Amino acid sequence: MGSQKRGAGRPAKPVLNRDLIAEQALELVVEEGLDRLTMTRLAKKLSVATSALYNHVDNKADIVLLIQDALVSQVSVEEMLRLTQGEATLDSALAAWARSYRAVFAKYPSLIPLIAVTPVSDAPMTLRMYNIVAEAVVSAGIPQDKVISVIVAFESFLFGSALDMNAPSNVLDAGESSAGSSSLERAIAATKSSAQEAGVATGSADQQVQHTNFYAEPPFQLGLEALIRQALELVQ
Amino acid sequence: MGSQKRGAGRPAKPVLNRDLIAEQALELVVEEGLDRLTMTRLAKKLSVATSALYNHVDNKADIVLLIQDALVSQVSVEEMLRLTQGEATLDSALAAWARSYRAVFAKYPSLIPLIAVTPVSDAPMTLRMYNIVAEAVVSAGIPQDKVISVIVAFESFLFGSALDMNAPSNVLDAGESSAGSSSLERAIAATKSSAQEAGVATGSADQQVQHTNFYAEPPFQLGLEALIRQALELVQ
Repeated sequence: MGSQKRGAGRPAKPVLNRDLIAEQALELVVEEGLDRLTMTRLAKKLSVATSALYNHVDNKADIVLLIQDALVSQVSVEEMLRLTQGEATLDSALAAWARSYRAVFAKYPSLIPLIAVTPVSDAPMTLRMYNIVAEAVVSAGIPQDKVISVIVAFESFLFGSALDMNAPSNVLDAGESSAGSSSLERAIAATKSSAQEAGVATGSADQQVQHTNFYAEPPFQLGLEALIRQALELVQ
Repeated sequence: MGSQKRGAGRPAKPVLNRDLIAEQALELVVEEGLDRLTMTRLAKKLSVATSALYNHVDNKADIVLLIQDALVSQVSVEEMLRLTQGEATLDSALAAWARSYRAVFAKYPSLIPLIAVTPVSDAPMTLRMYNIVAEAVVSAGIPQDKVISVIVAFESFLFGSALDMNAPSNVLDAGESSAGSSSLERAIAATKSSAQEAGVATGSADQQVQHTNFYAEPPFQLGLEALIRQALELVQ
């Protein structure tokens, strides 16, 4: 093949920018784990010199912020924006935000411990999300000094729920070593029977996300309802 | 130093058993990360031949179960046992179990994604905990088919709350890139002011655990109260 033909058939090499770096960093972390994320490996994946990468990001911590922003920008804040406009209710906005948040992070469970402790100050899309949510819930009457508690209580539950979506459906099964676990066994049997009646095990309760764990939805609904009710009671 | 003196001054080398393996595996994972947990490295840390380790555990997955059991056995179920005996209330038992659970896992945040998806069937202390909790909440009137939802909703929140305890106190601070984040800033300022009045920032709200994140307690209390109320309403 001549160089002209090869040049014509291929798209131009994309210009290195922070979006592209975030995308490839996320891929690297998902495929190989956070420990394998280094400036050198990321530069190699991007087919650029490490020095070129340093023109755009300072260090690994900076890349983590890019990854955080790339994830958070996938979380839908549509219903929160509508709430601020007076076109949605607090409970529908919290529920829509929570479901979207959980779905995004359920795709990247291994990143959750990192994202949960990464300060948001240099992650513009993350700041944007928090600001939209804060403005919306304040507009709905949540007192200023309760906004952070509400957001963090939801997030704590959502991070854990995102992890639970990745659990196998038999995560709590007692299996063969069931001696002394009869109360647990009865509870699991009752849950399965109840879930089958409700059609949960066939996935009809939530088609938005592929569940590994068929039984993740009822506990999520229970906790979400609890948190939404608590938030509604804070409204002044 | 002669060999006799050395022999007399040192304790005998501990016999290899699953408790010792769990303890050293936990140490290895905390110090070096889960990726570095291999049969070979663990054997070296235990100063035994890899073949000796294989006499006690089958593989890495088996070691993860040992670690899970070692952590879960630290979670207090005292108040749940008292509930089953009719000597405690459902809300006090759920609160005590939840606080203890969060405190244990807050010490090992990097293990949370793994523990959250590890089936419990071959982890006897973990099965024991679930069985005690299931028996207790059923004795208090939670319907059989809601027990798993209640436990999993709590756990989801507790895993996330354990992560949040490890966040720096400034995790949500907008910092210098605060353009467009004024609602968030006002909420943070109101939270800090309110927390200082309540003495949260000086740690007086919870002396049991060393907080990195001074502001972890109010959202935890909000979510815990929400979940406990939801559970109480299920009582028949």
